[in-house]
Amino acid sequence: MTGCLIGVGVGPGDPDLLTVRADRIVRSASFVAYPAPDTGQSFARQIVDGLIPTGVREYPIVVPMRTDRFPAQEIYSAAARDLSAALESGTDVVVLCEGDPFFYGSFMYLFARLAERFPTEIVPGVSSLGAVAAAARQPLCARSDVLTIVPATLPEEDLRQRLAETDAAAIMKLGRHFPKVRRILDDLGLSDRAQYVAHASLPQQAVHALQGAPATAPYFSMVIVPGVDAFV
Amino acid sequence: MTGCLIGVGVGPGDPDLLTVRADRIVRSASFVAYPAPDTGQSFARQIVDGLIPTGVREYPIVVPMRTDRFPAQEIYSAAARDLSAALESGTDVVVLCEGDPFFYGSFMYLFARLAERFPTEIVPGVSSLGAVAAAARQPLCARSDVLTIVPATLPEEDLRQRLAETDAAAIMKLGRHFPKVRRILDDLGLSDRAQYVAHASLPQQAVHALQGAPATAPYFSMVIVPGVDAFV
Repeated sequence: MTGCLIGVGVGPGDPDLLTVRADRIVRSASFVAYPAPDTGQSFARQIVDGLIPTGVREYPIVVPMRTDRFPAQEIYSAAARDLSAALESGTDVVVLCEGDPFFYGSFMYLFARLAERFPTEIVPGVSSLGAVAAAARQPLCARSDVLTIVPATLPEEDLRQRLAETDAAAIMKLGRHFPKVRRILDDLGLSDRAQYVAHASLPQQAVHALQGAPATAPYFSMVIVPGVDAFV
Repeated sequence: MTGCLIGVGVGPGDPDLLTVRADRIVRSASFVAYPAPDTGQSFARQIVDGLIPTGVREYPIVVPMRTDRFPAQEIYSAAARDLSAALESGTDVVVLCEGDPFFYGSFMYLFARLAERFPTEIVPGVSSLGAVAAAARQPLCARSDVLTIVPATLPEEDLRQRLAETDAAAIMKLGRHFPKVRRILDDLGLSDRAQYVAHASLPQQAVHALQGAPATAPYFSMVIVPGVDAFV
């Protein structure tokens, strides 16, 4: 019997926002893997810090934090080889995923390498989208709104066109692209409807109408532009 | 002291996919409200059937199930009046919301009417998006993909254009619009990447590659078209 690969969404940050299933799986895990930056702590690991049992085996998948470069696939290939060994020995491997495993997550790279060889379970999680809307106290979209989710990393003209054509938007991965996003939303007359949220659901959560937002944004921040009918 | 209005996302269907916070709030509720169709059961209420304490006061907000007509705002105004009375008497009112409260939900109509008068809490939930991707065992989007969420109710040409221009898509509220959606995806050459999921996370969950999907789709079903880099 091989072990099971379990991709677990751990939600946006507050451990209270793990699902009941995720909470149970993490508390009973014997082997956990998670993405980690080359310096500093793993966000996914931090979220479940109070839940992980003592004596658990931990496997950080160290991915250099370069915001605009795609981390080398070799990292995931090496991680998949290491996790294969644990799975082959019959150990279940719990992979902690920020938010939801299949929503812009790096879990897909392990999934693509391992899902055909091992039993695999995916536990969906609360994405940052819902947490940001809740933090902003602002419904995202209503009725037949089109909601477009765009990474702020897109080229300016592309981003401008996407935002001009949609009813509602969520703009992710702001970081150093924040000034560009603000410029575009100003140009399009959307700034007065836009909300900025950083670190949604965490104690350091910050919420601002976009026009009153600070000049710089961390990576874990988002701007939402609610649909006209959803705007309160 | 007035009561607190609490909008609780109860996730896509499996009660195991409530968040830890939602589970706790529902189990200790004394007053719950939820949307309900004019015939049949409330889906949000069904999800938490095993969690609701005995003796809880229940308030179904009956909204006629007309798929293409927006339910009259008078229904929500009347519900808000009734819930105000409970809130004014100091009772917390838990409103059960399918998926996430601020993601295409009707909770916004109560929120818009009550949030300025009463303390309000929003508990984000797992949306159908993550549950559908998990069910299909298919990552939705990667890296700098643009993800467009479109209701199938849009006019055909509008829907076609949205789907032609995006990297990844989720098409919701299929119902009787399913043939139109299939036609468009066929025309755009996207059908071979598309997955169809009905009743994600529930025992009756159905998952098909779009080309092998049944001819008719229920309201609680979705088609996802993953981004090219996410497609496994």
